[in-house]
Amino acid sequence: MRADIIIRDCMIITMGNAGLIENGLIAVKDGLLVYVGRSVEAPSFEADVIINGGGKIAMPGLINCHTHAAMSLFRGIAEDKPLDVWLREAIWPLESKLRSEDVYYGALLSCLEMIKSGTTCFSDMYFYEDSVAKAALEAGLRCVLSSGIIEAGHKTLGRILLNEAVGLARKYHGAYEGRVSVMLGPHAVYSCSPELLRRVSDEAERLNVGVHIHLAESEVNSDNIKKNYGKSEVKVLGDVGLLRPSLLAAHCIHLSDEDIALLAKHNVKVAYNPVSNMKLASGIPRIKDLLDAGITVGLGTDGPASNNSLDMFDTMKIAALLQKIKYSNPRVLPAKKVIEMATIDGARALGLDGLVGSLEVGKRADLILLDAHKPHLTPLHDVYAALVYSARGSDVDTVIIDGKIIMEKRNVKTLNEDEVMRRAEEKAHDLLSRKNTVRRLARKILRV
Amino acid sequence: MRADIIIRDCMIITMGNAGLIENGLIAVKDGLLVYVGRSVEAPSFEADVIINGGGKIAMPGLINCHTHAAMSLFRGIAEDKPLDVWLREAIWPLESKLRSEDVYYGALLSCLEMIKSGTTCFSDMYFYEDSVAKAALEAGLRCVLSSGIIEAGHKTLGRILLNEAVGLARKYHGAYEGRVSVMLGPHAVYSCSPELLRRVSDEAERLNVGVHIHLAESEVNSDNIKKNYGKSEVKVLGDVGLLRPSLLAAHCIHLSDEDIALLAKHNVKVAYNPVSNMKLASGIPRIKDLLDAGITVGLGTDGPASNNSLDMFDTMKIAALLQKIKYSNPRVLPAKKVIEMATIDGARALGLDGLVGSLEVGKRADLILLDAHKPHLTPLHDVYAALVYSARGSDVDTVIIDGKIIMEKRNVKTLNEDEVMRRAEEKAHDLLSRKNTVRRLARKILRV
Repeated sequence: MRADIIIRDCMIITMGNAGLIENGLIAVKDGLLVYVGRSVEAPSFEADVIINGGGKIAMPGLINCHTHAAMSLFRGIAEDKPLDVWLREAIWPLESKLRSEDVYYGALLSCLEMIKSGTTCFSDMYFYEDSVAKAALEAGLRCVLSSGIIEAGHKTLGRILLNEAVGLARKYHGAYEGRVSVMLGPHAVYSCSPELLRRVSDEAERLNVGVHIHLAESEVNSDNIKKNYGKSEVKVLGDVGLLRPSLLAAHCIHLSDEDIALLAKHNVKVAYNPVSNMKLASGIPRIKDLLDAGITVGLGTDGPASNNSLDMFDTMKIAALLQKIKYSNPRVLPAKKVIEMATIDGARALGLDGLVGSLEVGKRADLILLDAHKPHLTPLHDVYAALVYSARGSDVDTVIIDGKIIMEKRNVKTLNEDEVMRRAEEKAHDLLSRKNTVRRLARKILRV
Repeated sequence: MRADIIIRDCMIITMGNAGLIENGLIAVKDGLLVYVGRSVEAPSFEADVIINGGGKIAMPGLINCHTHAAMSLFRGIAEDKPLDVWLREAIWPLESKLRSEDVYYGALLSCLEMIKSGTTCFSDMYFYEDSVAKAALEAGLRCVLSSGIIEAGHKTLGRILLNEAVGLARKYHGAYEGRVSVMLGPHAVYSCSPELLRRVSDEAERLNVGVHIHLAESEVNSDNIKKNYGKSEVKVLGDVGLLRPSLLAAHCIHLSDEDIALLAKHNVKVAYNPVSNMKLASGIPRIKDLLDAGITVGLGTDGPASNNSLDMFDTMKIAALLQKIKYSNPRVLPAKKVIEMATIDGARALGLDGLVGSLEVGKRADLILLDAHKPHLTPLHDVYAALVYSARGSDVDTVIIDGKIIMEKRNVKTLNEDEVMRRAEEKAHDLLSRKNTVRRLARKILRV
């Protein structure tokens, strides 16, 4: 049989019904997986590219369910601050000066980092998402774009941003054989009025796209909502009709049992961002309870300014550790479940499980190969534990997205690495020095 | 001036009085740092080896204050278990079958992993520590060896192990110009009787060596001590005379305010092991309170079977995150303090701050160079934050220990990497299949 790419003699973590295949073969044709199985049972393939998978682990590409890719430009500028101060004093004033080109180079830098750490699909929420689309397409990544909608008391702003988000959805949703999809991205219940949220809800239904929102991230904001509306953030979302299977709710920390039952009832999807939640001291989400309620939970890094990394291996490890300590129970969130969250559950959370998330025939070929011949991955008694607790993004050797080899032996084929880093650095420094007001603020932040 | 090695044009994180040097020069001669300062102020050096530090960050080698290096052989064999079950059902039965050669190859594998992730000094507690010494010396690492002393009701066993520990101290303490030092390693208050602990205390004083112990790691054990002795573990140590500046207490999770005051009064040193504490769900130590009480806290990975990694960059990140969430305060444990804990404070905890822990003239040359030209380290707005939150062990390019280049461009010069991995793997599999009783147990653990 003919294939475009075959990978021979690798261990395959399918995350599908076939489970773990000790010595397997993967064949890719026209962007699709056409064979995933034991080498001894494989038909004979001819292929343009034959990859020797000996000593390597193949697994579905990692899916980052919640990030703000362009915020790589802000990595390290505002350390050790709680969410509201971090946003109000550092991030928002800088964001108000952002230009489309900054977002493009910031996103491109993040795409490079994601590829080099094994992420093949990311779900982004930010401004100038057409620039993020441009960066992701150039890099060869799969992406779900949510154009940020924020009102913060300015109704006109909310209207303009909603229009932009609708335009983005019309332009990109389902484009490139599904490699790009779009959600509407109302920032949060505390930064969007119920009226705006209701319009977002209607537009999303009309366009048949998902909605991506920050939910119950900060205790202060959640409490304020309760004071001002007399109900929880989740209930506000219920009132405006946004509780639905295509709602992707990031964080979900400050939830009551009733809130969890509501999310479960409406099959809402959750993005768990353990590093950012710890770094900003936002709180620890009750992931075990969410899972026990039957809710699909994907993993996210959150933006590089509150992590400060896009390495999903790092996030997988901390995701598991944080739940074990939260519930004082080392049995909570075993390694295999964490890998599900970073692959197939992430795909479900983004509505992409028909396309990606597992290595199964008929799905798009989004996969990574890790080099297991490393001291920290030796001996390999338990491959799931090794992937969660011992592996790092830098162990990823090869990245294939939509059937194309994007990285081979750690060389990214789609981007000029030096150039991407240089331009992003330039943009970051330019942004910090842009206009006096910003410069003064940046100086204050940087304490220089 | 003559030097053996000079490193030019690097950013230097000295962790000493000079702070951060943007463009610096480091000169090494006869194992010592002979210049650490700004390039423009440096005298003219001639050197056998000249390293171009452009785009690199130089910092003190990382100090791992608490590990059990040979446990790399057990990495992944007993996942998702609480400490007491993990020890009783999985680890102790396997350890009872350990041979000196297993420990040598397990330790050698860990030495390789430590070098490749920037650790230059480790403090180990285990059995057959002479094999760990052999491995560390071969690898070129600096080490503090604690021969494990455990009694668990068998007085003869305690006596034999104490004698062994004393023998190790006589043989190795201060050897190789201080590259090897020794502590006595009573396992824990719950596994050693007060009589044995008193003898350990006396021997340590006679030999003028430190004592390394697990303290208040498990709540169950701490509670049992309180029930059986009518006092806390810390007070038991006080009674037997072990509270002293040269006591290194690992974990210190279940402490009262009174315990903390006692540790501070006696200038006891603490090793904080955030990953292991989370993975085994042992609890979260009150590191902020320990620091506020003036206690020196170093960082440890704990053994590779409860982490499952020896990457101190990973440990630094999680160390900071865990305290921020513990105290619901993102300002707790800022990045620079975490780096202090992994360098100069670690050196203090091991009684080695006169030798290493900072890059200052007169200290032994233990240092690492990180390649900062990576997407996840771009832009470099805050180098301390980048090292803690964004860097990984794989960013370490060069490792120098005691003035010798141990790793260059990620090639370890002292060890044959393939051979070390192969032999350790063999030993691990041999150990699991050794004798029927062990095999049955291993099968149960591995669920095969």
